[in-house]
Amino acid sequence: MKNYKLIISYDGTNYNGWQKQGNTRNTIQGIFENIISKMLGKETEVMGSGRTDAGTHASGQVANFKGETSLTEEEIKEYINTYLPNDIAVLSVEEVDMRFHSRLNAKRKTYEYVIWNSSVSDVFRQRFMFKCTSKLDIENMRKAAEELKGEHDFKAFCSNKRYKKSTVRNVYSIDIEQNGSEIKLVFTGNGFLYNMVRIMAGTIINCGEGKIKAEDICGIFESKTRENAGVTLPACGLTLKNVEY
Amino acid sequence: MKNYKLIISYDGTNYNGWQKQGNTRNTIQGIFENIISKMLGKETEVMGSGRTDAGTHASGQVANFKGETSLTEEEIKEYINTYLPNDIAVLSVEEVDMRFHSRLNAKRKTYEYVIWNSSVSDVFRQRFMFKCTSKLDIENMRKAAEELKGEHDFKAFCSNKRYKKSTVRNVYSIDIEQNGSEIKLVFTGNGFLYNMVRIMAGTIINCGEGKIKAEDICGIFESKTRENAGVTLPACGLTLKNVEY
Repeated sequence: MKNYKLIISYDGTNYNGWQKQGNTRNTIQGIFENIISKMLGKETEVMGSGRTDAGTHASGQVANFKGETSLTEEEIKEYINTYLPNDIAVLSVEEVDMRFHSRLNAKRKTYEYVIWNSSVSDVFRQRFMFKCTSKLDIENMRKAAEELKGEHDFKAFCSNKRYKKSTVRNVYSIDIEQNGSEIKLVFTGNGFLYNMVRIMAGTIINCGEGKIKAEDICGIFESKTRENAGVTLPACGLTLKNVEY
Repeated sequence: MKNYKLIISYDGTNYNGWQKQGNTRNTIQGIFENIISKMLGKETEVMGSGRTDAGTHASGQVANFKGETSLTEEEIKEYINTYLPNDIAVLSVEEVDMRFHSRLNAKRKTYEYVIWNSSVSDVFRQRFMFKCTSKLDIENMRKAAEELKGEHDFKAFCSNKRYKKSTVRNVYSIDIEQNGSEIKLVFTGNGFLYNMVRIMAGTIINCGEGKIKAEDICGIFESKTRENAGVTLPACGLTLKNVEY
């Protein structure tokens, strides 16, 4: 028995996210399990580093599966890519220690949220950005990012109200890069709650629009109330960039 | 009455090409005519530099329309972009001489055909390329491009067998740029027949695969027979880059 780590990228537009849920079809996990189970001749679970929302993309999702095969790493990669649709790809396959677990061992994740602040679409990349034509004050957005950073109880920034476990997370950095009409928000943290990146991005945008003040973010954390934070931005702007172990 | 020149880009994946045909919906031209007719309060024709096939993209399609309006060029651009879907954009609006005609005055056009020569998809750009996993001999492709260049009767490279007018065209250059798994074929000419770029690209790929020899291209021209040329590559790899006047 061997354990294989995969690095995966996908355009999530047409998928119901990473994780299969009951009989929900059309998930990235479901597609991988079908191909890998066929390859190994045995029902095989493919574990991801975490679920990504429906419509969210990944350039560096990590997954792992265990199985017996005489194929080399390169042959496994070739086999899987041959059966994947063109909007999903395996970038690498590597044999790892049997104890490696893509979700439990994840130490840091980086997500990117791309805002396109112009009425003129970038038609070749519009599937991977959120178009927002409001006038945005980038300095207020930077102040908001500064307030959101650090270890906090992110309950107000989570869409799942029935979440039972700890909602404390540590966001190590939120970088804001502006390049012409593109504003890229890069979030690195030890983990993110359901919709947390999209709600943080929405709160930052709302600060840029003057609808929320950066000084109020401290109170939003304390309130632990979802309604006090900013909007949940659409999934299309979000990409899981990488997972560190 | 004024005449306006538009530079337009689109992801053509979901459209039936530029030109409205009878009651075919979902064409780029149809979408522009709806918006501009509403803007001017009057049925208005929007003329394109040429039809692009269903599924073909453009980063620099040119069109023009005539009408009366008190809006500035910038306001026209803003108005149209507000009503366009995110996969179509107007990059510029410019008032031009009344005699300017986007199709009749076009002197040179440049098309790009992108081949992705790897089993590992580039998921973020796969809508704009043709994935081909055959082993390709780039030197043979360059030889084929050399043979295709110049002024020829391109009847064998045209899908429309009932085309009545001259099928002579001048292809000024065909550049082949290889960058990792990406092979970009850049065609510049004084005009292109129906499917001509996709058939030239198919002939070049067939030479790269060893299915056609560059030396045979001369005879293919002479035969004037579509069946002798290479395959018609899919529309997804093709982008109209610019039109010169």
